[in-house]
Parts: sequence; C-alpha cells; structure tokens
Amino acid sequence: MVDIATRVYNHKWKIDPIVRSLIDTDFYKLLMCQSVFRNNRDTHVKFSLINRTKEVKLAELIDEGELRLQLDHIRSLSLTRGESTWMRGNTFYGKRQMFRPDFMEWFENLALPPYQLEVKDGQYELTFEGKWPEVMLWEIPALAVLMELRGRAVLERMKRFELEVLYARAMTKLWEKIERLRELDGLRIADFGTRRRHSFLWQDWCVQAMTEGLGEGFAGTSNCLIAMKRDLEAVGTNAHELPMIYSALADTEAELRAAPYRVLEDWQEEHDGNLLIILPDTYGSKQFLENAPDWLTKWTGVRIDSGDPAEGAETAIAWWKSRGEDPKKKLVIFSDGLDVEKIEELHARFSGRVRVSFGWGTLLTNDFRGLVPGDALAPFSLVCKATEAEGRPTVKLSDNPRKAMGPAAEIERYKRVFGVGQQEALDVVV
Amino acid sequence: MVDIATRVYNHKWKIDPIVRSLIDTDFYKLLMCQSVFRNNRDTHVKFSLINRTKEVKLAELIDEGELRLQLDHIRSLSLTRGESTWMRGNTFYGKRQMFRPDFMEWFENLALPPYQLEVKDGQYELTFEGKWPEVMLWEIPALAVLMELRGRAVLERMKRFELEVLYARAMTKLWEKIERLRELDGLRIADFGTRRRHSFLWQDWCVQAMTEGLGEGFAGTSNCLIAMKRDLEAVGTNAHELPMIYSALADTEAELRAAPYRVLEDWQEEHDGNLLIILPDTYGSKQFLENAPDWLTKWTGVRIDSGDPAEGAETAIAWWKSRGEDPKKKLVIFSDGLDVEKIEELHARFSGRVRVSFGWGTLLTNDFRGLVPGDALAPFSLVCKATEAEGRPTVKLSDNPRKAMGPAAEIERYKRVFGVGQQEALDVVV
Repeated sequence: MVDIATRVYNHKWKIDPIVRSLIDTDFYKLLMCQSVFRNNRDTHVKFSLINRTKEVKLAELIDEGELRLQLDHIRSLSLTRGESTWMRGNTFYGKRQMFRPDFMEWFENLALPPYQLEVKDGQYELTFEGKWPEVMLWEIPALAVLMELRGRAVLERMKRFELEVLYARAMTKLWEKIERLRELDGLRIADFGTRRRHSFLWQDWCVQAMTEGLGEGFAGTSNCLIAMKRDLEAVGTNAHELPMIYSALADTEAELRAAPYRVLEDWQEEHDGNLLIILPDTYGSKQFLENAPDWLTKWTGVRIDSGDPAEGAETAIAWWKSRGEDPKKKLVIFSDGLDVEKIEELHARFSGRVRVSFGWGTLLTNDFRGLVPGDALAPFSLVCKATEAEGRPTVKLSDNPRKAMGPAAEIERYKRVFGVGQQEALDVVV
Repeated sequence: MVDIATRVYNHKWKIDPIVRSLIDTDFYKLLMCQSVFRNNRDTHVKFSLINRTKEVKLAELIDEGELRLQLDHIRSLSLTRGESTWMRGNTFYGKRQMFRPDFMEWFENLALPPYQLEVKDGQYELTFEGKWPEVMLWEIPALAVLMELRGRAVLERMKRFELEVLYARAMTKLWEKIERLRELDGLRIADFGTRRRHSFLWQDWCVQAMTEGLGEGFAGTSNCLIAMKRDLEAVGTNAHELPMIYSALADTEAELRAAPYRVLEDWQEEHDGNLLIILPDTYGSKQFLENAPDWLTKWTGVRIDSGDPAEGAETAIAWWKSRGEDPKKKLVIFSDGLDVEKIEELHARFSGRVRVSFGWGTLLTNDFRGLVPGDALAPFSLVCKATEAEGRPTVKLSDNPRKAMGPAAEIERYKRVFGVGQQEALDVVV
C-alpha cells in the first residue's frame, strides 16, 4: 500500500532541508549561548567560515542558489514547543532546569540573523555578524549545511545500487570500529560529530549504532535533537569562542592575560560537576595551566583538543600532581581528530591513571574515506569561528601552530603575552 | 505519517510466508512441467529432500510447526490472474505462447499435492508423492523454505543494528563481486540462485544489483516471479529429473541406454534455439556425448553442471569438432558451484573458443559465508530430487561421484550400462 499523503507531502518541499531544527546543534553551543546571553549579550561579533582544506573548492562543488535556500531555511526555523519543553524540563548532567527561564524565553522568540555570502577563489566567504548570542548559533548548522551539500553534489551522480552499497560500506566500516571499541574495558565515549557529519540521517544512524553496540559505554551525543529523539544524554561543555572573544575585548595586556581565566570564573558561577571542564589550549595549554589560579585545580577535568593528545594529558596529570590534586579523580576528555587506533592507544595509556572519556567527531559521523573514486566524500577541515569582537580581530593559538588563527601580528602579540614558545606542528586531518 | 492500515494488515499474518507465489520458482521447472504434462502426466513419482551437509541438523534448527505452516501456505497458493497473463502473453527466449493453452488451464487450477514430513537423526525427511507434473513443482519452494527457515533461526537472535550491518556486509560482498565481473569483456551471466537463496527479498536485491551493475551482461533470472516483477528475461532449460525418471521407467538395458536421448527427442519436439541445451552429465558426460546420435550435435549448446568445469567444456568442444561442428557457434553454460574466481578463470579460458554463459546460483544469492559467528548462515548442500518413479528407484551418477544418488546396486548397474569408468571426486560446496 502506498501512503499517498506522505508521498505528495514530500514532493511539496521546495528543498530537502539539511537542518530542520534550532536544536539540531551541539549542546555546548546552547550552554555557552546561555552564558553569553547572561554576561555579554550585546557584544557585537563576527563569525566566519574557514575551509582549511584549500583543494576542496566548495564554490565549484556547491550551487550558490541551493546553499542560500538551505541557509534561508535555517533562518525560518524557530524553537518548537516540544523542543522548548525538552530544554526546560529535561535533566542535563543530572540537573534540572539547566536553562534559565529568561534565556528560554529569549530563545523561544529567536530567529537566526542574516548571513553574508560571497565567492572568492573557488571558496565561499560566509560570514555572520551581530549580537554574540545570536551569531554564535550559526556555527554548527552552517558547517553541517556545507558538509552535506558537498556530499550531495557527489551522491547526485551515483546510481541506486551504488548508493545502497556506499551506505552498506560506510555502515560496515563504522560497525567494525564499534566492534573494536567494545573490547575496551570501561570505555566512555560520546558523539561529537554534528558539525562535520556526512548528513543528519547518517549521524542519527551512527548514534543508534553506538547505542546498540556499546551500551553503557556510549555516553551520549552532543546533538540536542538526536539526544531528544533517541532519549540519550546531551553532552558538551564549552569551546574556544569564549576565551577568544573575551581576549579580543581585553584593553590591556594584563586584561588579556587574565581573560581566559575570567571565562572560567563566569562559567563556574553557573555550573558544577562534570560541566567544570577546562579547555586549556586556546593560547597554549602548558602556560595556561602553569599560570592558572588555585581554584581551577579543583575543576573536574580538562578537554584535550589540539596538539599531541598523550602529551596534553601528561601535562594535565603533572599539573594536578604539582598542585596536590589526585589525577585519578580527574577527568580527561580527548576530542581532537580521534579514530579507533588513537582511542585504543589513549585508553590503554591513561585508563586507571585518570578518568578517561572521548568525544568522537568527524571520523565517527563522516568516515566516507576510500568509498568513492577520487575520495570525493572524504571529510575535510571546515570550521566556522569567531573572527572579530567589537571590530577587533580574535586570535587562537592552540597547541598545534597549524590550527592557529588571526592576523600574523596579533598572533605574535598573543604568543608574547601568553609566553608561548616553540610548538610542534601536526597535520590537521579533520 | 504512519500507514496504519499497512501496519495492522502486516500484523494479521499468522506467519511471514517465505514462498508467496507458484511462479516463485525456476523457469525451467515450468518448461519441464509442461513437457511432462504432455508426455508423462500420469507417471507416479516421489521426490525427496536430501541434505548433503550432514552437520547442519535441520530438525534441530527449524521448528517443525513453523515448517509445516510454511509448506501448508505453499499448498494454499494458486496462480493469480496476473501471473497467468504473464505466462501466457510474455515472450520467452524470443517466442510468444511458450506455454500451451491446455497446460495453462491445468496450471491455473493447480494446488500442490500433500507432503510427508518426518524427523530422523536430526534431519527432516520431507517427501512428495503423486503425479509427476504436480510433485515436481515442490522442489524449488521446498528448498527455498528450508534454506530461509534455517537462516531465520539464526537471524532471530540478532539485534537491530547487527542485522543491518549483516546485510550491509552481504551487500558489500556481492557488489565487490559485481565490480570484478564488470571487468570481463562480453560476459553473459544469469541468476540461477532461487533454490538455495538466503531469502526471497535478498534474491530480489541481488538480481537488481546485477541489473544495475552489469547492464547488458546480466542475461536474466531463473526466478519467474522476479523476472515478471523486474521486467527481466526468465531463463533456464531442463534438468536431471527428466533423464532420471525416463531411465527409471526403462524396462530393458537397451531402453535404459536410450532413455537420456529420448528425453532430448521429446524436448526438441517443442523447443528450438537457445532452449536446445544438452545437460550431458546425468550418467557421465563423456560417454553420453560419444554415444550421442548425430542430431544432438546440431543442438545449440551444453550445460556443465558437475565435475571439473573446464574439463567438461573441453570434452564438449572436442566432441563438436569430432562431429564436424564449429565450437565457436556453440553455447557452453557453466552452472555448477560458481563464484567470481571460477567465472573469471572459465571466461578467460573459453571466451572466443565457444559462446560462454554462466548460471550463477548459491554464491550469488546466498553468500553469507564468514558473516556471523560459527558461520551459521553459510549455505549448505540441500537438494530435492526425484528418488522414485512408478515404485522404482532413480539413479544419478553425474561427473562427480560425490553427487551420485540412488541405491548402491543400481548405481553399479547404471555405471555398467552407461560405461562409466573411474571418476574424479570433487568437493561439493553448495
């Protein structure tokens, strides 16, 4: 029996929307958004799309009209009643009413601000300007749209069974990873793959496969819509945009040096427990930890998001020890460029020494490497970052100079102010 | 939107029927059935299920009640109007009205005769007795039911995503075979996999994948229902049951020696062109061809169904040459235990020397080897054969003594009458 109504309804769509919900985004965006809404709601910022994989010419692969339709569709979205109820009523990190009524009221009435789109050298220059709490919400959907449109451009040329076998291969590939992860005693791993996913449906499949395959070892997903739909934990804490913008707003070098710690001071006014996770690498982890005030040593853990992850974890362990803390009680979350080998290696090295957790991103939700000719579906390194705050450029150094961002002169100034010396350059895969 | 009606309707089924149509069978069965209906419609025969893979204990794996429900369901089937129209009106091997009106009328009113089911040594003893044209139609559905029920017993214990990945792996496996076959210039290959398929839906998927993947190189399917549904050629000619029963009915040794040729005399009264395919191995190919009357050398080709296939083809080529025929104009159909390596090898060796074609069976529609623990879904060697005719045992020698069937004394007598000497024993995989 054909469901005629569904068939007709589906054909009425002008496009097949990639992002269909304002909570089809990372949980930490919403947490940070609430924090920004409280502390910096009128700060004017600019976010820009940056494709670090120059050889993927997005403007040649993706039709501009199609891109605009997708972005316009996102601007037409508003929070549904069910989504609002979930955010207001659900338990996050064991806590009810994580989102305050004033924030929810604002969010319920929000539509995303306009975007600016131009083409230059075969790349899209996509920027978002306006008030920080509004503009910041563009990051994840903008990335997801570009990743998926690029994928669709490739899939469009494939035949019915080629497509079916493509997904069969991708499923097999992921399941083989899950079968290996299943062997790791006490593994805790979450999905962090929204921004560079192959597609929403594929991320949803990956999350369900992780749920069945890993059981208790699967700690949840950063994607709020999928967490709601699949009754899973929504996970994530905070990201680089906070120290980057706080730092750009600093008027003196003393303020600049203090800015990354001010971020965390503001953060701990609202949060506790597993939400107290330090992201130390924005301007070099080593110096950040060495110069950290004592109250930071009481925080629950660190997230290692650039540089050599084992080295990053060793640095944190040494730091805790030097400050009289027991690393065994601390949480280390690895979230940079993970795949199974790396997870196995880090799990073997750090289990028992600290509490270990993994935030698995692109190679969970977009490992289509090797599956089509020319590797045209391989993930690539696309980011969308805060590039300006109140007209001043932002800077990120990170623990890998290849991930550094900002004007060269500013990068040098930040290096000097934060005392960052020689750094090891590592390939950025995704 | 949920299609409520479909959901409710699906839950009303007492069972999930494995065979849902009388034409969910091999085309050659229907061709042979028409021939038998014309020449031997009152011959009393017995067909028996034989599991040559003793270690697969079917009666331990498959619930008897379930098996009976499936077999009873097949007995409840009759030809639908659409199926009848297709058989009456479709073109088979370029010819209209392949099926005569008197046969169609009989077939339209047919329900399959009763079956006898017992359990012995962990195996089902499943037999069918009655008039030849009725009983013979049990072979294919009975095999398909047992293969699929055994599969279901394994699948029942698997979880949702395990199942999805199982099929993803099987799809990938088949597609990799198709990608290799695509490289073979001028390949002609057909699906012969109904009897030992993993399931109907899976066979249907395999056929569609072959259609997309091989295009013109895919010559069609032996399965009539799928041929009808997918608008493909229905292919197949004749099988061992004809010479086996003709031989069992012979009263003298002279009649016995002549019986296999009588089968083909009857056959050529009704058919021509690509339907004139000799199946020479029932009582040894070499002697069969050597002693063949001259009119047989005019037939279109041979089907190689046991023994070393290259040797079988060389024997046929030498025979044609010795009788003044040009092998280049002759068709050789390989149909025994094929998989990609073997197809590549035979294609390379015989292309250009004869017209080559392949009937790919079990390892097309049931290659689940290595996909579950204990290889519990690997295909096994199940057959359903004519074992008696008018109370006399039938005999098959074939070109592989491991495929021989019948009482030992009878086998010896047949060997003597047909002059079969030493034979090479080859493993029977499927």
